[in-house]
Amino acid sequence: MDVYISGVGMTKFGRSKEPLEKMMAEAASLALKQAQVERVDAIYLGVMSVEEFVGDSNFATLLADTLGLTGIPSTRVETASSTGAGAFEAAFYAVASGHMKRVLALAGEKMTHLPTAKTTRILSEVIDRSERRYGATMPALAAMIAQKYAREFHLSPLKLEDILAQVAVKNHSNGYLNPYAQFRKIITKEDYLKSQIVSYPLRLYDCAPITDGASAIILTSQPTPIKVAGIGHATDTAAVRHRSSLTSFNSTKEAAQRAYTMARLNPSDIQFAEIHDAFTLFEIIGTEDLGFFSAGKGWKGLEEGTTHLRGRLPINPSGGLKARGHPVGASGLAQLVEIVYQLSGEAGGERQLERAEIGLAQSIGGLANNTLVTILERADRKRILREGWSPDYHPEISLSKKSTASPPSEGVGILETFTTLYTTPEGFLSPLTLGFVRTKGGEMVMACNPDYRSPKELKMGQKVYLRIREGLYVFEKLSFLNRLKYWIKGPPKSP
Amino acid sequence: MDVYISGVGMTKFGRSKEPLEKMMAEAASLALKQAQVERVDAIYLGVMSVEEFVGDSNFATLLADTLGLTGIPSTRVETASSTGAGAFEAAFYAVASGHMKRVLALAGEKMTHLPTAKTTRILSEVIDRSERRYGATMPALAAMIAQKYAREFHLSPLKLEDILAQVAVKNHSNGYLNPYAQFRKIITKEDYLKSQIVSYPLRLYDCAPITDGASAIILTSQPTPIKVAGIGHATDTAAVRHRSSLTSFNSTKEAAQRAYTMARLNPSDIQFAEIHDAFTLFEIIGTEDLGFFSAGKGWKGLEEGTTHLRGRLPINPSGGLKARGHPVGASGLAQLVEIVYQLSGEAGGERQLERAEIGLAQSIGGLANNTLVTILERADRKRILREGWSPDYHPEISLSKKSTASPPSEGVGILETFTTLYTTPEGFLSPLTLGFVRTKGGEMVMACNPDYRSPKELKMGQKVYLRIREGLYVFEKLSFLNRLKYWIKGPPKSP
Repeated sequence: MDVYISGVGMTKFGRSKEPLEKMMAEAASLALKQAQVERVDAIYLGVMSVEEFVGDSNFATLLADTLGLTGIPSTRVETASSTGAGAFEAAFYAVASGHMKRVLALAGEKMTHLPTAKTTRILSEVIDRSERRYGATMPALAAMIAQKYAREFHLSPLKLEDILAQVAVKNHSNGYLNPYAQFRKIITKEDYLKSQIVSYPLRLYDCAPITDGASAIILTSQPTPIKVAGIGHATDTAAVRHRSSLTSFNSTKEAAQRAYTMARLNPSDIQFAEIHDAFTLFEIIGTEDLGFFSAGKGWKGLEEGTTHLRGRLPINPSGGLKARGHPVGASGLAQLVEIVYQLSGEAGGERQLERAEIGLAQSIGGLANNTLVTILERADRKRILREGWSPDYHPEISLSKKSTASPPSEGVGILETFTTLYTTPEGFLSPLTLGFVRTKGGEMVMACNPDYRSPKELKMGQKVYLRIREGLYVFEKLSFLNRLKYWIKGPPKSP
Repeated sequence: MDVYISGVGMTKFGRSKEPLEKMMAEAASLALKQAQVERVDAIYLGVMSVEEFVGDSNFATLLADTLGLTGIPSTRVETASSTGAGAFEAAFYAVASGHMKRVLALAGEKMTHLPTAKTTRILSEVIDRSERRYGATMPALAAMIAQKYAREFHLSPLKLEDILAQVAVKNHSNGYLNPYAQFRKIITKEDYLKSQIVSYPLRLYDCAPITDGASAIILTSQPTPIKVAGIGHATDTAAVRHRSSLTSFNSTKEAAQRAYTMARLNPSDIQFAEIHDAFTLFEIIGTEDLGFFSAGKGWKGLEEGTTHLRGRLPINPSGGLKARGHPVGASGLAQLVEIVYQLSGEAGGERQLERAEIGLAQSIGGLANNTLVTILERADRKRILREGWSPDYHPEISLSKKSTASPPSEGVGILETFTTLYTTPEGFLSPLTLGFVRTKGGEMVMACNPDYRSPKELKMGQKVYLRIREGLYVFEKLSFLNRLKYWIKGPPKSP
């Protein structure tokens, strides 16, 4: 059964004094009002870490009650930071099954009321335990990916910096036009360069902010002008180091393939997209993974203006997670709200796109662990080639490299990528240098070295020596002295 | 599209040394093996408070990875203590939509590794904030419901005690036969009476235990001998005191009505059922709400042996939450696993029921806030009257009594029900007496009085005086002295 959208709503993102359930009720009321209905057959509720952020569980009940919809089935859905898109997907299947006529997908998160250290700790729980114990945060892992991207595609540190700044500048410029955005200020490259380094090479302006907000969509089996064309969903390894590629996300590619196939569409059909720019580089990687640009070329699309608001393929007209803000549970659904605004010509002012008949949203859960791709289109769009559709999206899915062997012992390895983390989580001294080291056996391990106080001391691809200290891998450069010791005495035995 | 079951699995419930993801993987492997498949199109994962119990979020990803199913869509679903049934429902709609051919519903919880006080705190987060702040726990609310039930249906304290003991004795007797049960010991009424009072009148043997465990089911669009006949889901008010009836649960009735309607079945068609006996009385109330017995008569069905293993309508052949154990996220799915065992004749030994062609499970989330009713049947069952089905289940749904007026001020009220809680949560002195007081305006408020150290000092229906102390309602008996003061000086002004 085909699924349509009859109403959307969202709160202004930012810092809110309202309790979470009030914010969510506000978004839901707007959507119900637009859909001109008072009741729905079910609620699918997206909240990511509500138990820890606000101290309540049983939130699906609380929302049904707050909305005055007591009795109606209400189910909480969670897929880490893609939760809002996950709630939409669950709602989609409920309507597509024919058992439900009209359902509410409702998503939100309240984060700004807690101290940043606590929020960081809660957000870090999405990271695989084996990497989290080194002090890895989301920005640290994203920074290691950024370094690797620059090396793989031969971008100098200055060039990488320039590309990342361009993403931030573009998305702030779009957010300036969006009344729902947390940041409505235009920034320049100079502003970007002035922002502090969170985890080298990523700056504060590379990272989506901490935000309160809620978003809502009514899905229905009754035809409306906006149709759900396709949904795809895919996971990837929990640990980032187990992936064979760090510069492209399998979960995006598999999800996109499923969404394009369900929609019988190709990347060239997409007119605009909302991309999960939790970190600036993720926008670039996203546009490559989705088939808009080839690998390592996404930044050119940005540089040439293709992804700008007036370009051929506007990316993040809303301002993205970067400028609209990122209430983790709500973002995935807010992206779809923006697409509906654009498709219905309601985005308003300069933000309204001229070509807006078909839009795509990509929402990443965790560090690209659990990703959803959703395509919405105008129901009146002419689909001349529908019958004759043939897929032209054939992404390369790289297999994971998780080994079932026992963990590697001490020895020489290659430093594949690294970062120096300045905003460390509780219990870790700043700065903290973290790296992925490939061992002789080909396995990738995470390792740390709190002695390297600057990223300047290291470079990717160099040989390092891995030791095990208190159950953690610690890496150090193979200095002349270290090499000599190694040559004379042989490698130290693992404990 | 019709939905069938091709495989089930569960771990032995109890105390486990394995991490949660390993237990869940074990249950999933059994289900996949029985279904003779290696892959599924999606995973729907039920865990209730995994962030707080084990300190990880992003659990849907972790499980896909642990199962070696990286890439497959994985979505976490949560509806408080009915979470396992909620995961099954989401999986059902995914298959029913026609978009997925085969999905895994997988549920689990790990609870025994934490101190009981911490576990109690986590479990209490399902309770509405306005009631939780008085120190109310799940057993305390269930105890107030039990008191009210006894009063409403004219059961003496001794009679109530006898009925509750019978539920515990029956379910332990069934659990004794279940190799997956946490408690495999037969208990007597004397054992029951020796167990300590948790919250008057409920004893330890009235409450489901703290348990580790996991359960799994494969749902498929391909016909198999077991079919999903109907699913219903409903919520009720977050706060228990806002309900117009405390002795019957609207959420069960609305969910049952939806499930019976989808299945085109009536209560009299059901041959056996798994009921959410988180507290012994809930089994009695459940059998009434589901239409098996009329209100206030469920205990007679038990007393007459109807709900015993060899009775006409066996209830909780698995031993129920009481004896099989209650890993909160897993229980709702484990009930369905038991029904599949029975329907396929695989329950084994004395536990196998003779009439097992159609079974029902009722799973309660929170304090009957979010309930699911699921009916499974043998696909080869003769349904002679299918075409001519007419519903004979017409439950009385009582409206909630939430007032939007400002909270009642101090004054005289009626003590509707009360309990003395001995196992108090952190920060509350034991014993703690809690009650629901109906004000003159007809509103129900929760109130406490730490001075009453024994339930013997109070009785339901008596007049009490409500005061407000430090933002909480405190009630005290209208003694002769209090009455005199009240008559001479008028009611004290609210602060």
